[in-house]
Amino acid sequence: MLLNYKFALDEISTKLNILNEELQYIQNYNPIEHLKTRIKSPESIRDKLVRKGHAVTTANAIQHIQDIAGVRVICSFSTDVYRIAEMIGKQGDVTLLEVKDYIAKPKPNGYKSLHLIVQIPIFLTDRCVDVPVEIQIRTIAMDFWASLEHKIYYKFNESVPSGIGSQLKEAAELIAALDERMFSLNEQMQESKAEV
Amino acid sequence: MLLNYKFALDEISTKLNILNEELQYIQNYNPIEHLKTRIKSPESIRDKLVRKGHAVTTANAIQHIQDIAGVRVICSFSTDVYRIAEMIGKQGDVTLLEVKDYIAKPKPNGYKSLHLIVQIPIFLTDRCVDVPVEIQIRTIAMDFWASLEHKIYYKFNESVPSGIGSQLKEAAELIAALDERMFSLNEQMQESKAEV
Amino acid sequence: MLLNYKFALDEISTKLNILNEELQYIQNYNPIEHLKTRIKSPESIRDKLVRKGHAVTTANAIQHIQDIAGVRVICSFSTDVYRIAEMIGKQGDVTLLEVKDYIAKPKPNGYKSLHLIVQIPIFLTDRCVDVPVEIQIRTIAMDFWASLEHKIYYKFNESVPSGIGSQLKEAAELIAALDERMFSLNEQMQESKAEV
Amino acid sequence: MLLNYKFALDEISTKLNILNEELQYIQNYNPIEHLKTRIKSPESIRDKLVRKGHAVTTANAIQHIQDIAGVRVICSFSTDVYRIAEMIGKQGDVTLLEVKDYIAKPKPNGYKSLHLIVQIPIFLTDRCVDVPVEIQIRTIAMDFWASLEHKIYYKFNESVPSGIGSQLKEAAELIAALDERMFSLNEQMQESKAEV
Repeated sequence: MLLNYKFALDEISTKLNILNEELQYIQNYNPIEHLKTRIKSPESIRDKLVRKGHAVTTANAIQHIQDIAGVRVICSFSTDVYRIAEMIGKQGDVTLLEVKDYIAKPKPNGYKSLHLIVQIPIFLTDRCVDVPVEIQIRTIAMDFWASLEHKIYYKFNESVPSGIGSQLKEAAELIAALDERMFSLNEQMQESKAEV
Repeated sequence: MLLNYKFALDEISTKLNILNEELQYIQNYNPIEHLKTRIKSPESIRDKLVRKGHAVTTANAIQHIQDIAGVRVICSFSTDVYRIAEMIGKQGDVTLLEVKDYIAKPKPNGYKSLHLIVQIPIFLTDRCVDVPVEIQIRTIAMDFWASLEHKIYYKFNESVPSGIGSQLKEAAELIAALDERMFSLNEQMQESKAEV
Repeated sequence: MLLNYKFALDEISTKLNILNEELQYIQNYNPIEHLKTRIKSPESIRDKLVRKGHAVTTANAIQHIQDIAGVRVICSFSTDVYRIAEMIGKQGDVTLLEVKDYIAKPKPNGYKSLHLIVQIPIFLTDRCVDVPVEIQIRTIAMDFWASLEHKIYYKFNESVPSGIGSQLKEAAELIAALDERMFSLNEQMQESKAEV
Repeated sequence: MLLNYKFALDEISTKLNILNEELQYIQNYNPIEHLKTRIKSPESIRDKLVRKGHAVTTANAIQHIQDIAGVRVICSFSTDVYRIAEMIGKQGDVTLLEVKDYIAKPKPNGYKSLHLIVQIPIFLTDRCVDVPVEIQIRTIAMDFWASLEHKIYYKFNESVPSGIGSQLKEAAELIAALDERMFSLNEQMQESKAEV
């Protein structure tokens, strides 16, 4: 059953790499720094079903969990984040099921990222199935923060000491300031008349 | 312009790998030994346009040359060759434009292979284009022969000495005999009641 | 413990790819068709220890089993097989522990391949370890035969019916004839004065 | 000639990946976020020779330019940067030729990174050559800054307007503050008694 999700990640990665290479060629600009894909482990799927109050069955996993297949797209600037999201959403064989914009509205702990749930068709040997994929798109700085927060969260078994929690929030604000500063510099550069 | 053909190869390779991995998982059997992709060089495209009597323009290349993007699929047995061809041809977003069966009817020099021309949609940043791809499917033994024939043909600048030409044909017959023998052994094995 | 063997395969693959790319560049000739690597499964390691009469311990596996890490190198012609073997054997950081030439002396069932056991240093975070690797080098045709023989052997749980066994041997002879014919054609081509 | 540098990058990448995988396995911790490799273009090599006052010859390039092959190693924290540098420097077949620590002493424009020049042996088909490689090791945040600075520098043809230059320096300070904050959080996390 997890194989179909793996195939969906292969297809979505191919699509994202095509967009990135086209932009690289046309504008000499790579909006995507790098991609990471992951399949939820059977244990995480079970935990999530239990947490949501569903019986632990394959049918329930397929029906109720939409982030079994996940791809993370790391961009340089938050403008790239929305640009990639729009280009993927418009593709004829992609169905956009849900958007959660944690950049416009960060989570209470400071987490920022744009989450899309999309569905794509996968052609198997004897039939075609529609498979959902969660796409998380964020900047380099947001990703750095999220990786550390993730490690801290698991280390403290979900109950992060409040001292560390508030420092994490401050770091998130520092990151937002940095992203803004870097973005503004990039804008100034592109508006300047090149000297060449 | 060649970029779109490169993208089409990425998409077709993803599709073929999905079929192969699904068969590996379901039947513990990899019909595809390996894949090779190639883009025709600008020189070969020009030569082919001249040979066909067309002016050398990008528009003519797009319109008249259908094997700019090529993928070669190497299988263990010729039954796998037709099986892969059928599975690709049935996919909802693939249009089968042409089939040339050089296994049923080998070329005069002894060449054997199944050629398909298919067309697939490629989603670019701002539009979708249909791109043709030539898929050559053949057995390990046919591929071995074809690689050597190709080197000989270029070495002698297309006019192969008749002595070498007739030896190539004999080798092609030896290969056909070998493929048959190996296939028959494989069939006998699958029909036997396993001892396990 | 298996990690060190995986690292040894990474190092040997890098070495083999370098040789292949250099030959491709200098002589426009790829002697290596493709590489496959594999790590022996814990079950196979245990079975082999038992078969050899050793207690099943990690220390015994390290001391008595030299093909835990294996790489298979597939070449076009048997001359390439010996050429690759010689180039690897001469490298300053590679120790050649053993050579078994099943091409000169095929196994009773018809199996042909050149086997080397080499040892290479792997630099870990805090020390350097010497790791043995088995390198199997053979032609495309020998590999085709060996894959089928392997499937048949496991299907019949090691006791292949004599009818099938003798057909396998005949196929091995057909393959030897084919390899010779293809090699002779390749030689004739290289000796001919090119027409270009 | 550039081929040997490409081979050196293959070897160094294999070595770095082995270190990263071993740390991942032993400590469940990936110090290396990702690797990027590049070969200096013939134009850049020529420019650098001219700038240094040498005639443009292959011999001079080999003798006087040590960063023809470059690998960039991106780490989470600056402690990882020094750890990776130490582990590479200690390997028996690696010669450390030079260290430039732009983290301890940033460049005037704010650039931070640890640069090593190392030399490694490459085994070719008929001989062994020693090839120099520049290894740039830095944190995610330093890398983000350096990518933007690089784009700005080329856009303005090396004479960056002073307004933009001073904003870049401020961004470099913001990044240093961020790296410190994130590092301190990571330390606090590791020192805390885990709740699990």
